[in-house]
Amino acid sequence: MTPEERLEKYGDLVVRVGANVQEGQEVVLFHQVEHVHVARAVARAAYRAGARRVHPQAADLHMRRAAIELGPEEELGVTPDYFLDWARTWKDTKPAIIQLTGNPDPSLFDGLDAKLVGKAEPRDLRALYLPLVTERVTNWVIVPAPNEGWAKTVFGEPDVERLWQAVALAMRLDADDPVEAWREHAADLRTRSAALNGAGFDAVRFRGPGTDLVVGLLEASRWMCATFETTSGIEYLPNIPTEEVFTTPDWRRTSGTVRSTYPLIVPGVFARVDGLEVRFEEGRIVHVEADGDGAEMIRSQLESDAQAPYLGEIALVDGSSRIRQTGLVFHDTLFDENASCHIAYGSGLPMAVDGVDGAGAEELLAAGVNVSGTHTDFMIGSPEVEVDGLDAGGNATPIIRNESWVL
Amino acid sequence: MTPEERLEKYGDLVVRVGANVQEGQEVVLFHQVEHVHVARAVARAAYRAGARRVHPQAADLHMRRAAIELGPEEELGVTPDYFLDWARTWKDTKPAIIQLTGNPDPSLFDGLDAKLVGKAEPRDLRALYLPLVTERVTNWVIVPAPNEGWAKTVFGEPDVERLWQAVALAMRLDADDPVEAWREHAADLRTRSAALNGAGFDAVRFRGPGTDLVVGLLEASRWMCATFETTSGIEYLPNIPTEEVFTTPDWRRTSGTVRSTYPLIVPGVFARVDGLEVRFEEGRIVHVEADGDGAEMIRSQLESDAQAPYLGEIALVDGSSRIRQTGLVFHDTLFDENASCHIAYGSGLPMAVDGVDGAGAEELLAAGVNVSGTHTDFMIGSPEVEVDGLDAGGNATPIIRNESWVL
Repeated sequence: MTPEERLEKYGDLVVRVGANVQEGQEVVLFHQVEHVHVARAVARAAYRAGARRVHPQAADLHMRRAAIELGPEEELGVTPDYFLDWARTWKDTKPAIIQLTGNPDPSLFDGLDAKLVGKAEPRDLRALYLPLVTERVTNWVIVPAPNEGWAKTVFGEPDVERLWQAVALAMRLDADDPVEAWREHAADLRTRSAALNGAGFDAVRFRGPGTDLVVGLLEASRWMCATFETTSGIEYLPNIPTEEVFTTPDWRRTSGTVRSTYPLIVPGVFARVDGLEVRFEEGRIVHVEADGDGAEMIRSQLESDAQAPYLGEIALVDGSSRIRQTGLVFHDTLFDENASCHIAYGSGLPMAVDGVDGAGAEELLAAGVNVSGTHTDFMIGSPEVEVDGLDAGGNATPIIRNESWVL
Repeated sequence: MTPEERLEKYGDLVVRVGANVQEGQEVVLFHQVEHVHVARAVARAAYRAGARRVHPQAADLHMRRAAIELGPEEELGVTPDYFLDWARTWKDTKPAIIQLTGNPDPSLFDGLDAKLVGKAEPRDLRALYLPLVTERVTNWVIVPAPNEGWAKTVFGEPDVERLWQAVALAMRLDADDPVEAWREHAADLRTRSAALNGAGFDAVRFRGPGTDLVVGLLEASRWMCATFETTSGIEYLPNIPTEEVFTTPDWRRTSGTVRSTYPLIVPGVFARVDGLEVRFEEGRIVHVEADGDGAEMIRSQLESDAQAPYLGEIALVDGSSRIRQTGLVFHDTLFDENASCHIAYGSGLPMAVDGVDGAGAEELLAAGVNVSGTHTDFMIGSPEVEVDGLDAGGNATPIIRNESWVL
C-alpha cells in the first residue's frame, strides 16, 4: 500500500464508516493547518461520497498563541458572532462534522500565563457544539491526522511514516476490507456492553496505586460502544479508532481519589497535564493536584460552569485494545482514551441513559445526567488497576484484572 | 539579518506602513495554508501594533480543486451566507484587511474544466470586498508570502530563501529603516503622478509589437501612487511593493489592440494565462486570444457582469522599478504589475477620479468610471513599448521610452 493509497483508504473509512456522510449532506471539517494533507484526503472522500459541500475550517494554534501573548485579554476565547450564528444553524441543517486530531506542537503554549491559556479556549463554540454530539443530532467523527509535530511528541523525532504505521494499525487500515474489520470489531465491543448491561451494576470501583474510586451509576445508565445512530436514523462511528465501552454515571455519586495514568490533554487548549490526582466527594471534584501549572489549568476548566466538576462519562478498556498493544503513549485523547479505562468530568451523554431523550438541562440534571459546556477525558487504567462492578449491597464482581476483561 | 529577524521586520512593515493597523482595530487576514509562517508573523505584528483581534482566514486551493473536480456544480463559487453576512458588516466595522499573495501551485487547476474553474471563483465575496477597497472604506494591504511552490514557479526549484531575497529587495527590507525607505520611494512616485496631473493628457497611447492602444482618460482622472487615505483619515500603502502611478480611464474610450507582456494571473481562480491579445472597440473588449484554454478563462470573467469587459485602470511603470530590476517574472500580479505598465478590465477606482466621492454605481458609470465585480490587471509594458500622452488634438508627448521615464 503506497502512502497515497493509504490516504485514500483512510479518507473513505472516515467518511463512509466514521461520519457516514450522506448524499447531498454538508460537511464541516475542523482541522489544524498542519493537518492539511489529511484534510484534503477527507474532503475528496466526502465529495466522492456525494457531499454537497465541504466547509474546511483550518485553525492555527500559533494564531491563538499570538492572541494570548500579545492581544487584549477580553478577546480571548471569544468566538466571533458570525461564526456562532452559523454554528447555531447546525441543529437544523445537520451537517456531518469531521474533526481531525493530532497536536502538532504540545509545547506551543509553554511559558504563557496558564489562566490566559485556559481563557483562550473557544468555550461558547464548544457549548454550542457539544449538544449536537451528545444528543445525536448529527453524524460526526473524530479521527487522527498524523503530522510531523505529533510524531515528534510520540517518538522524539518527526518520523511521520512511523506514526502513520501505528495509526493505520489502530484504524485497521491494514485489513483487506477495513469496513468489514470495523463491523467485526464493533460486534466484539457490543458483547462487552451487553454483559455489563446484563449485570446491572450499581457502581464501578477502580483500585490501584493512588486510586480508590467508586463511580455510582444510574439505574437507567446504559453501556454503549462503537456505532451510534442520529435521531434521524444515520448510523455513525464517532471515534476511529475506538476500543471503549462507556456510559454516563450519576453525577451525584462519585467518591474517592483517582490518579491519572496517562497525560491529560486539555480539550480546546491542547495543553498537556501530567501527574493529575483528583479527589471526589459526593460527585464533585473537591481537590486537584498535578505537575507544574497543570492543576491551575484544570481548575480553570472546572470553574467554567457550575456542573463542570462532576463526572459525565465512565469508560472501560482492556489490554486487548490495539492502541494499548502498540505500547505507545500518543499524547492525544482519541488514542490514549482507547488504550485505557477513563472517566470524563463535564457533560454527560444523554444517549447512554434510558428515558431522557429530548430532555432539557434541568430534567437531565434531575435524572442524574450531568450538563456542562465542558467534557474532559482522563485515563485511569493500568495493569495495576483492578476494575469491579458493585451491586447495591456493595458486593464486587471482577470486570478487569491485569488488563484482561474477565466479566 | 537572520530569517527570523527578516520575518519580524516584514511583519512590522506590512502592519505599520502597509495596512497601518490602528490601536483597537480588528484585522481580517486572508492567506493560503501554504502562507502560514508568514501569516503568523503578520498576526504577531498586528497584535504588537495594538490590534484588538486578528481573524485569520486560511484558505486552501486544494479544497477548491476537490469541489471543482468532485462536487456538484451548483455549489461552485458560492460563498456561504454566514460568511457573506460577516463581510457585509465590514463597511461599518472597518477592519484592516491584509491579504497575502504568492501562488503555491499555479498548475493546480490544470486538466479541470476551465468553465468550472472560472465558476468556482468566489464572485459574491469579491463583489462585496471590492468597494471597501476602491472606495477607501478601510485600510488594507496586499503583500507577498514566499513559499516553496511559488519559488518553484519562479526559479524551477523550491528555493524559498532565494525568493525571500528577491522579495526583501523589492520590499526594501534591506534598508536600515524600511519605513523611511518607503517614505522616500513614495515621494519619488509622487513626483511622477504630479507631472502627469500637470500635463493634463486626454489619453495615453501604447505602441509596440502587437500593441497599438489608445486609452481615453476622463477630465477628472487623477494620477495616484503609493499611499492613500481612508475616508476616515487613516493613511495606508495598499501594495507592498508598489512602483506604479495609475488612474481610472474613461470606460467608454479605449480602442485598439494590445498584447500582454507577462503571464496574466486570473484573480480568485489563480490560473495563468499566456499569450493574451485583446482588441477594444469603443471601450469594450470585443476580441480575446490566448494560449490553450486561457481565452475561455478570460471570456468567463468578462461575462461575469455587463461592465466587466471595460477598463477600470491604467498604470505606468518604468525600468527603474526594483521588481523590473530583478529581471524575474514572478507569475504574481502584485509583483509583475509593478515591473511593467499595465491595464485592468473591470472595476474602476473612484478615488482616482475627482468629484465622484460617495457616488452610486449609476452615477459613477455616467461619470465614466467603470463599476464591476471584477478587476483583472494585465501587463503590457516592455522595452519595445513606447508610451505617450496625447492631448485632445492628438498631439503626442513621450512619457516612457526604452523603459525610461522621460516626461
